[in-house]
Amino acid sequence: MEKENFIDFSDLEVVALAGGVGGAKLAHGLSMVLPDENLTVIVNTGDDFMHMGLFISPDIDTVTYTLSAKANPDSGWGLVNETWNTLEAVNKLGGPAWFQVGDQDLATHLVRTELLGKGLNLTQVTQYFCERWGIRVRVLPMSNDPVRTIVFTKDGRQLAFQEYFVKERFEPPVKEFSFEGVEGARLTAEVSSAIYQADLVCICPSNPWVSIDPMLSIPGFRQLLKNKMIVAVSPIVGGKALKGPAAKMYQELGIEPGVEAVAEHYKGLIRGMVIDEIDSANADLLIARGILPMVTNTIMKSDADRASLAAQTLKLAIDLTGRAIHQ
Amino acid sequence: MEKENFIDFSDLEVVALAGGVGGAKLAHGLSMVLPDENLTVIVNTGDDFMHMGLFISPDIDTVTYTLSAKANPDSGWGLVNETWNTLEAVNKLGGPAWFQVGDQDLATHLVRTELLGKGLNLTQVTQYFCERWGIRVRVLPMSNDPVRTIVFTKDGRQLAFQEYFVKERFEPPVKEFSFEGVEGARLTAEVSSAIYQADLVCICPSNPWVSIDPMLSIPGFRQLLKNKMIVAVSPIVGGKALKGPAAKMYQELGIEPGVEAVAEHYKGLIRGMVIDEIDSANADLLIARGILPMVTNTIMKSDADRASLAAQTLKLAIDLTGRAIHQ
Repeated sequence: MEKENFIDFSDLEVVALAGGVGGAKLAHGLSMVLPDENLTVIVNTGDDFMHMGLFISPDIDTVTYTLSAKANPDSGWGLVNETWNTLEAVNKLGGPAWFQVGDQDLATHLVRTELLGKGLNLTQVTQYFCERWGIRVRVLPMSNDPVRTIVFTKDGRQLAFQEYFVKERFEPPVKEFSFEGVEGARLTAEVSSAIYQADLVCICPSNPWVSIDPMLSIPGFRQLLKNKMIVAVSPIVGGKALKGPAAKMYQELGIEPGVEAVAEHYKGLIRGMVIDEIDSANADLLIARGILPMVTNTIMKSDADRASLAAQTLKLAIDLTGRAIHQ
Repeated sequence: MEKENFIDFSDLEVVALAGGVGGAKLAHGLSMVLPDENLTVIVNTGDDFMHMGLFISPDIDTVTYTLSAKANPDSGWGLVNETWNTLEAVNKLGGPAWFQVGDQDLATHLVRTELLGKGLNLTQVTQYFCERWGIRVRVLPMSNDPVRTIVFTKDGRQLAFQEYFVKERFEPPVKEFSFEGVEGARLTAEVSSAIYQADLVCICPSNPWVSIDPMLSIPGFRQLLKNKMIVAVSPIVGGKALKGPAAKMYQELGIEPGVEAVAEHYKGLIRGMVIDEIDSANADLLIARGILPMVTNTIMKSDADRASLAAQTLKLAIDLTGRAIHQ
């Protein structure tokens, strides 16, 4: 694919922090406007879980499927042209069919489990899939060590993330979150080096609570981000999340969901924020917080939308850098 | 299904010792002629292995698929009307596609792995599948503890059984076998009690070296068989194995494959042996060894063949019992 931009991004080393569908789409957009070697996508692994013996890494799969243009375009997750023979048989057998795993998708989990069993770490396994699928940007799990997002519900339960998210369709009101194992999770050399070399870190429109916070909680991660140019794309649009429970979580935690809540979430971290046209009235609130806003369409319906949002996000960072230079 | 026999087998408590395809077919035959509650099939688990994170129990699957009439009639293993979407995707991903696992079959392995992970033992998991599939005879793994058949080849290698059998298509000449873990494998209460109560133990036409020997090697198993009426159905017909490497193994170990070799294999254990019409000339050799032969068609092409061979096998045992009484 020919990469053509009005602004030259070829000198920009970019790290994107991504969760699932929204993050994957922006990462795909960034891969369309940046030279392959200039982009590293660091992906949340707090959703990873063992399911019927298989190691499943939902966000890594969504990101790699999206980057290699084989994600199901309707749902954003899973594979296009998927079949469901095994899941149907698991269901008939009374097995756990709540996690929607298609026949082709299953092969990913089987091969990942096999490779991990052979002693490869998650970074190497992810690289293996990227090579197989012709993905030339770097995709890195946030850590090779297990970090497991736990959702504490207001009715006093502790749910593993996928149980909360898929099995219970994120219905139970949340009280708080914990990232099991995060205090022992180590930064990988690949993640450290990518962030160290980055001119810009882009926080994708992913769930701040359960997609970005797990990464930020890894010991040393925030330290690495210090003095980096960081911009975020708001996952909240018009007070709502396009997908998933981000807005619902803010509400349940007593915070009005909106771009200001996201700005507050990333306080001290971001210097710019891309918000949707529908939220343009809130631009001043961001400026008052010292955050440079960029107002544009943030709803990525097409590949062109993805590329355009990516370009706008990079432009915001360049504006901020210019501003810094000229201050 | 109506069970009709010329001889009344309703008082006979039977245990069948079975490996894969041949054993499964005779077990199916026995289930057709015996009341459900009178039959227990004890199945080899020496072939069990972990594959891409899944616990696979090939002989138990072949036996339960066959008993519930959903085995692939062409191959004898796997499921009828199977699809192969996941295996194809695993293959494309460069994963281990040598073990032919279909989409429906995969569900069995996934659910088994899930249930074992929940703390059920293999006996309980097998019972779970039997209930799901309407199998009313008892199917028991030979042990809940891992026993792994290792094939030592003449070229100095040690192969896990499925690697030898499937991956290398049982081509490498064998030198000897070992059953890893067998000295620590415990008899289950279910196996002990079934054999204890059995009037007759039938050794199915399975591979003596790698399907029956693993069971016989479990500490206490031979002891349980002492003083039991045991008959075998020869897995060697006209000097050949109908399926698999039994005859080839005898040859490679320097033994002429034939019904006499099988009789020698089960020396001190069996009192009767069912042999094929093609081997009728060898009947006298068996008699000379104190083994009562029964000559019949042992090639099970149809369900009727299975039922007929089962009935002949039971009749042989009854003849032997009568003989014992009248001696």
